[in-house]
Amino acid sequence: MLLLEERIRKDGRVKTGNVLKVDSFLNHQIDVKLLNRMGEEWYRIFKDERIDKVLTIEASGIAIAVIAAQYFGAPVLFAKKAQSINIDGDVYSTKVQSYTHNRIYDVILSKKFLHEGENVLIIDDFLANGCALEGLIDLVDQAKANLVGVGIAIEKGFQKGGRELREKGIRIESLAIVESMDAATGEIKFRKQ
Amino acid sequence: MLLLEERIRKDGRVKTGNVLKVDSFLNHQIDVKLLNRMGEEWYRIFKDERIDKVLTIEASGIAIAVIAAQYFGAPVLFAKKAQSINIDGDVYSTKVQSYTHNRIYDVILSKKFLHEGENVLIIDDFLANGCALEGLIDLVDQAKANLVGVGIAIEKGFQKGGRELREKGIRIESLAIVESMDAATGEIKFRKQ
Repeated sequence: MLLLEERIRKDGRVKTGNVLKVDSFLNHQIDVKLLNRMGEEWYRIFKDERIDKVLTIEASGIAIAVIAAQYFGAPVLFAKKAQSINIDGDVYSTKVQSYTHNRIYDVILSKKFLHEGENVLIIDDFLANGCALEGLIDLVDQAKANLVGVGIAIEKGFQKGGRELREKGIRIESLAIVESMDAATGEIKFRKQ
Repeated sequence: MLLLEERIRKDGRVKTGNVLKVDSFLNHQIDVKLLNRMGEEWYRIFKDERIDKVLTIEASGIAIAVIAAQYFGAPVLFAKKAQSINIDGDVYSTKVQSYTHNRIYDVILSKKFLHEGENVLIIDDFLANGCALEGLIDLVDQAKANLVGVGIAIEKGFQKGGRELREKGIRIESLAIVESMDAATGEIKFRKQ
């Protein structure tokens, strides 16, 4: 998606340690108009599928998931990190390694809200090593729901997550795939799609 | 807002310890269409004000803030709980007591995104004792920005937050104010607005 690639080039900043900071428009300050264009694009891609639930994970996935869900007319579920007293009863649970925060989270989803046979579209902001996405897919599998596909805003194509999950047959539609980035020069190259 | 009150009566559940669970439509599963009606209502209330930034706090404030921000044409800022390596440089910082999780969070907002003189609308899902809201107001004050007002989805009118902050002159517009609720009977009474 050219609009997103141009925005990443303009406002994204490459940091050492394979960090691409997009906090000025995607995950701290949020450009809602850009999110609307992204939601429209995922709708164009997935519009022939029935989507019963849009699934994401807190916190930075929530904004893009709810904006995108407007185009599908579906409710959003966001999986929660760690147990909260506001989640009761039966939950699906999985573990996710966060490299950003250097810890392992328990990620939970109430069984009440995802059912066998429902069609799920997963939306998230980043795909790198794939840990968060594998956790969400595990929750979908536990519910015996159907994973229709995955919409990712920014995929780091030089990390293994996207390749490994596509090899397993998961449909992943990333709006921008970073092929390489250089913290010294700030240069970002995108994969042609 | 009658639509929200009706939905709380229908799908909200009162638990002991003054807990009102709305996880089927507001903060775990999210009814995006309801959020659109809430956003329209806040826009009706605040439409004569210039809103430069919509400010909320992760995680459950994000969904309602981004949907509401569409009506104001303003970007969203979400304050983050605890330091992350994805936040760098100068941040405004405050401390918030969470009764839900029984701990104190550091809440931070990058100085890059909120500036002196900007008009801020705060949006959040709940107002009870007011701790989270006081933290957000503190961030606005640190930035020397102007707090136009606060849009709250559900205020627990029997707790002190709303009264104390209104007495300080803060304009708080809660779409539903719970006057009382009873965990034994499940009955919820709303304040007439």
